[in-house]
Amino acid sequence: MKAMLLHEDRLFPAESSVRKVARSLYDGVRNLPIISPHGHTQAAWFATNEPFPDPAALFVQPDHYVFRMLYSQGVSLDDLEIGQPAAREPRKVWRIFASHYSLFRGTPTRMWLDFAFQELFGMTERLSEKTADVYFDAIAEKLRRPEFLPRALYEKFNIEVLSTTESPLDELKAHTAIRNSGWKARILPAFRPDPVVDPDYEGFAAQVAQLGEQNGEDASTWKGYLSALRKARARFKALGCTSTDHGHPTAQTADLQQAEAAALFAKVMAGKADAAERELFRAQMLTEMARMSVEDGLVMQIHPGSVRNHNRFVFERYGRDMGADIPRATNYVDALRPLLDRFGNERKLTIILFTLDETAYSRVLAPLAGHYPCLRLGPPWWFHDSPEGMRRFREQTTETAGFYNTVGFNDDTRAFVSIPARHDMARRVDCAFLGRLVAEHRLDEDEAHEVAHDLAYGLAKKAYRL
Amino acid sequence: MKAMLLHEDRLFPAESSVRKVARSLYDGVRNLPIISPHGHTQAAWFATNEPFPDPAALFVQPDHYVFRMLYSQGVSLDDLEIGQPAAREPRKVWRIFASHYSLFRGTPTRMWLDFAFQELFGMTERLSEKTADVYFDAIAEKLRRPEFLPRALYEKFNIEVLSTTESPLDELKAHTAIRNSGWKARILPAFRPDPVVDPDYEGFAAQVAQLGEQNGEDASTWKGYLSALRKARARFKALGCTSTDHGHPTAQTADLQQAEAAALFAKVMAGKADAAERELFRAQMLTEMARMSVEDGLVMQIHPGSVRNHNRFVFERYGRDMGADIPRATNYVDALRPLLDRFGNERKLTIILFTLDETAYSRVLAPLAGHYPCLRLGPPWWFHDSPEGMRRFREQTTETAGFYNTVGFNDDTRAFVSIPARHDMARRVDCAFLGRLVAEHRLDEDEAHEVAHDLAYGLAKKAYRL
Amino acid sequence: MKAMLLHEDRLFPAESSVRKVARSLYDGVRNLPIISPHGHTQAAWFATNEPFPDPAALFVQPDHYVFRMLYSQGVSLDDLEIGQPAAREPRKVWRIFASHYSLFRGTPTRMWLDFAFQELFGMTERLSEKTADVYFDAIAEKLRRPEFLPRALYEKFNIEVLSTTESPLDELKAHTAIRNSGWKARILPAFRPDPVVDPDYEGFAAQVAQLGEQNGEDASTWKGYLSALRKARARFKALGCTSTDHGHPTAQTADLQQAEAAALFAKVMAGKADAAERELFRAQMLTEMARMSVEDGLVMQIHPGSVRNHNRFVFERYGRDMGADIPRATNYVDALRPLLDRFGNERKLTIILFTLDETAYSRVLAPLAGHYPCLRLGPPWWFHDSPEGMRRFREQTTETAGFYNTVGFNDDTRAFVSIPARHDMARRVDCAFLGRLVAEHRLDEDEAHEVAHDLAYGLAKKAYRL
Repeated sequence: MKAMLLHEDRLFPAESSVRKVARSLYDGVRNLPIISPHGHTQAAWFATNEPFPDPAALFVQPDHYVFRMLYSQGVSLDDLEIGQPAAREPRKVWRIFASHYSLFRGTPTRMWLDFAFQELFGMTERLSEKTADVYFDAIAEKLRRPEFLPRALYEKFNIEVLSTTESPLDELKAHTAIRNSGWKARILPAFRPDPVVDPDYEGFAAQVAQLGEQNGEDASTWKGYLSALRKARARFKALGCTSTDHGHPTAQTADLQQAEAAALFAKVMAGKADAAERELFRAQMLTEMARMSVEDGLVMQIHPGSVRNHNRFVFERYGRDMGADIPRATNYVDALRPLLDRFGNERKLTIILFTLDETAYSRVLAPLAGHYPCLRLGPPWWFHDSPEGMRRFREQTTETAGFYNTVGFNDDTRAFVSIPARHDMARRVDCAFLGRLVAEHRLDEDEAHEVAHDLAYGLAKKAYRL
Repeated sequence: MKAMLLHEDRLFPAESSVRKVARSLYDGVRNLPIISPHGHTQAAWFATNEPFPDPAALFVQPDHYVFRMLYSQGVSLDDLEIGQPAAREPRKVWRIFASHYSLFRGTPTRMWLDFAFQELFGMTERLSEKTADVYFDAIAEKLRRPEFLPRALYEKFNIEVLSTTESPLDELKAHTAIRNSGWKARILPAFRPDPVVDPDYEGFAAQVAQLGEQNGEDASTWKGYLSALRKARARFKALGCTSTDHGHPTAQTADLQQAEAAALFAKVMAGKADAAERELFRAQMLTEMARMSVEDGLVMQIHPGSVRNHNRFVFERYGRDMGADIPRATNYVDALRPLLDRFGNERKLTIILFTLDETAYSRVLAPLAGHYPCLRLGPPWWFHDSPEGMRRFREQTTETAGFYNTVGFNDDTRAFVSIPARHDMARRVDCAFLGRLVAEHRLDEDEAHEVAHDLAYGLAKKAYRL
Repeated sequence: MKAMLLHEDRLFPAESSVRKVARSLYDGVRNLPIISPHGHTQAAWFATNEPFPDPAALFVQPDHYVFRMLYSQGVSLDDLEIGQPAAREPRKVWRIFASHYSLFRGTPTRMWLDFAFQELFGMTERLSEKTADVYFDAIAEKLRRPEFLPRALYEKFNIEVLSTTESPLDELKAHTAIRNSGWKARILPAFRPDPVVDPDYEGFAAQVAQLGEQNGEDASTWKGYLSALRKARARFKALGCTSTDHGHPTAQTADLQQAEAAALFAKVMAGKADAAERELFRAQMLTEMARMSVEDGLVMQIHPGSVRNHNRFVFERYGRDMGADIPRATNYVDALRPLLDRFGNERKLTIILFTLDETAYSRVLAPLAGHYPCLRLGPPWWFHDSPEGMRRFREQTTETAGFYNTVGFNDDTRAFVSIPARHDMARRVDCAFLGRLVAEHRLDEDEAHEVAHDLAYGLAKKAYRL
């Protein structure tokens, strides 16, 4: 019989002197407020403050980390009622999930889930086919209580600031509603212009037109298009936005003459641009966004290198973001050069680089960030937001870029209740890394305490200007 | 003076709490039968059951792991009598090997050799120039005993099933002879069609013609060629074969219209295909093999990314497989897409992916296997079938793909007496990894015992349908 | 209050049994003489034996590891007086450095600096804004003492041999002066022909002409050019040179017919070669250098894969080598093949390969060096010359290439006083790695002592023929 799902010393190295330091560092940061500068929760949850519907809708259906693993082992997405507005039989979905729970052994998803099960819902016995209904009933019951409403959870989680990610076309009604409600939370939108800067995005041209209309500009011209983007950025900024986010297939940038750029824009809008020209357009737009960031101070985030919707059948049947995005090797050294030639030495500019290609950490990202004043390294992303992934990130970037060219943690999640679990994991793993440095006499303990605090709290606030 | 060559706790982490768990896990799996679903032993050894000739022929001449290291340090292959039918002076070869034994410090080869020296031949003092003759005499003497004949060793090794790797042109006489002999061993052929699907294979066209003749098909036509392959597969299957194996230079796949494929086949057979067309043909053949696997249930293994026979001089003088194959960076994300678009969601299909490019583990292979129902990850291959290589594999794949999208261990060896050593090493390294997870409270100990059993035994049986 | 900047057990694993072995191994090698076969100190320091001017000129201005980190965090190179003949206000530069010292937490630079501060200058309190002046005054005072002159330091550092790196155009006056002075130090030049073999090097054609003049050859012809190079090598060799060094953008080699090569040379000299032809010329020159090495016995070092002067603004304003070189993914498997086809099996030839692309370690460099008799692996280079980088190198190369296809340590530094710190770090990290192998029973302790000695001393002497 297990008393707890999670051990107090989890993720700390077993060796006693390292563990002792790690614990001590963690004690200093475990209760710091959460800074969440990048994620995919929905502002509407906090605007309406309605209860989360059921355990399946909370834990299974929105979380592609969960259902991609189930799918890989033969569970059908139909049986999980994925892509439906709401599960008709949430208990059935939950039982499928529970009976496959052993698949998650050794994964961070398992630890995030157990954290929420234990800390939020008080479960003490492991989820399994046998305990499926106990879990379902306990969670379903709690979700109806006032202390489990979105705003109550936000407060319970000790979140100091939470950024969502929105299209420039989003009217930000939920964000406005939160502001107007008088509730004292700091929930901000990040500006993600992919739908209006990536010609390969579904509905690109119509979205650009809409962008123009919304902002009172003629977005069929290059000048009007840029002005509309500037206005949209200003509108986001007025609601507290401090950052933009760019999910491009590559890190390619370009620095065309404005006349060339205008001609390229016209061709792209006319639907006559080939693949290389569409790539060039995205590349140019990163440099345009950097130019606007120099002007308005929004921090840029670049998330390149994901092949979206790799599984044709799943995409055609269930749509985007169904756990079938697969990373590709990513070039930064040549790709970023045009932008860096133009703005790389601007001290007012901050560009946070992410990667799904871990080979870039030591070869190119740490050398770049350890030199260019505008560059910082984002935390390990997506598949690498895991104990081993976070350890590799520190081991492969710190010696060249140090700690101060990194920016703390992003939870980057759609799964709201996983936020405390994810920050807790990151804090533990960073303390474990620092604990090893201290125990190996590569860093003094007083310095390690300062660094731990910066990694858990200070760097994210500073880098994201929060 | 050393009492033993190998320590009972070898390969377990030094930290006492991790080591304790690792030992306990290992105790649960060390004596499990060996499942060897992929390797390069010769069925003829077991069909004829003749003694292995001498120590050099057993340990040095067939093992390119051994002689490539000697060659790298200036030993000539002629002096090792490589490429000869049999050594004329095996003792001289053995002395050269023994006097260079320190080169193998820190390599898995050293541990495999020491395991066989100790466990099989009872040696207790380290091999060196000084002990060369003691070893030679002791091993040579034992090889003449009945308990060192191939079948006796097979039984002593506790092998439950052993797969060899054969060309579709192989008549499988040795496999048939084993079956007919009444000996109760399970020795199966795997179907490796490279000589008849790779236009760059020496003698390709003639081999295709022979394939047609052997199977009563006109293999000069696309249809006849495919039928001949189908029949050859059926013939292998009748002798217990459960898998195919594909050693392509890249992981490229294609999904041509059948008319296009037929035209390409004609061009390839006419010797008029250029390099890109020959690559396209191999790519198409992977998809054809997948189609046949959906029909007949054979599990596919894909082993891409080796530049074969990199050393021109060595190839011209000594032939293939002389330790001069060098890995190349390997693309999977785009390369596999045509095949996956066609069959990736087939739950009846199993494709086991291997790599020599470790950068693919976390970037693409784990994400692919953690999503597509047909994909599984093969164990670390070749240069990476080593303690550090196996550790990296687990550290870089588990968090995304879990344990259950992997398939246990392959010894993949030509060196029959290294089989127990290799499985023992894999079991120890997996238990060391699991021991760390348990000691860091990332996995419960009862679960770790289940996983250890699956990694050592269950997953290989299941994935290979044995 | 801290008594010491550095702990005696630094860089050893915390686990007690590993640490015990590591310490014991380190005790056997810590006081071995320093073999420094590759570096960038200046022979003139030892020829003139003048005092180093001030702390900033010693620690900050020549060390791009130091100022690149400061620059990345917004410090201007002008404020550091970089690119000036000498700092006008060294104390001001020093204070900037001191007040940013926390940026170096977790970096090897920090440990190298602390080593010199403690061992050479007797500092006991950490460098910071507060202690900046104490440091400046103490160091400045000591630099004026006789025991801090370059020759005295060379002797204090227990250097057995030190190689500098020089252009073929260098008259080697400083080296000659050292020889003629009667001082018994062994300071040798390495032959680095990049300025006369790389068409993209600033001033290439003029330098080739000068090479011809200096050596009494008509370097406008292919034959005369090669003869001039041969004579220049002989001149270096007469002053003790044992190696050449090649800093090419890629590892590409070629093996053209001599007539083709002559035509290419003519085109290159005429300034009419395009980028691909200039690359082909560099490629051919590596093979020419290998041919000369077979003749004259100079060991070749190949350092490929750095994108030099990535930051346009910094290059235009401050020049070369300003911390803005960024590594690129590097192909070896195809690139080296032409050279290896020609000379790969020459036992008289030694080629030492370096990389900035760590993915090459296990995928291609260890497999190559574990097979070809002429190849050896250089130590981790530049950004990877760090505790984690050196650990990864051993973990990723040893199992395939062993220890004896590696060549010991290079300090590769411009920062003379960091030499003992760098060798000490390498010895500690190698002993830590060996200590783990011993504690995990993967290597016997008596063997580990031999290997530790070879890694710290023997292999460098042997590989570089010193």
